[in-house]
Amino acid sequence: MKVFKLEDTREFTPGAMKRFFLVEDSEFFKIINFNLEAGVTFPVHSHDLDGELSIQVIEGEGFFLGEGGVEIATKEGDILVSEIREPHGVRAKTDMRILVTIAPPI
Amino acid sequence: MKVFKLEDTREFTPGAMKRFFLVEDSEFFKIINFNLEAGVTFPVHSHDLDGELSIQVIEGEGFFLGEGGVEIATKEGDILVSEIREPHGVRAKTDMRILVTIAPPI
Repeated sequence: MKVFKLEDTREFTPGAMKRFFLVEDSEFFKIINFNLEAGVTFPVHSHDLDGELSIQVIEGEGFFLGEGGVEIATKEGDILVSEIREPHGVRAKTDMRILVTIAPPI
Repeated sequence: MKVFKLEDTREFTPGAMKRFFLVEDSEFFKIINFNLEAGVTFPVHSHDLDGELSIQVIEGEGFFLGEGGVEIATKEGDILVSEIREPHGVRAKTDMRILVTIAPPI
């Protein structure tokens, strides 16, 4: 059992995305906190692997991004669930924090 | 891609625990939102299976529970990571919402 505190990783990098691996030593999932300054984009990407991921907005607002220019407005409390092989990304409108869980870890 | 809104499942049952399965059709993980009224206990339990889970407090405060009477005070923004076979539970001090991710799903 281990407890992580999201308040401990509330750090932003000017004009960029800051990344904190909470869980990266598990064979079952990976949990990562990304903090995006307002205006920053986590580009649309995908991996040709079996698996799913969730992207939970834990602070701020922005857009979930998908294939072909899809943009879904999103804010704190929203959770995107996607296959790993499905294109996905995020753009921050305000300073924005997301929690990403990937199973199995990649 | 599917988006869930945690504000849509903010319902409490008097003296009990209310459960919303966000993702239960995936072979990779299961995501469940439990809402516990103040004072309610999600009893310590475990399953003899390989896998891990996370329990994220998304509202309120209470305690993470473990084997042998272990109690860890916790509040919004905390995430417990545990093996599925390790005894784990939760007790709500205030009305409390948690998000549980189990990989692989059980």
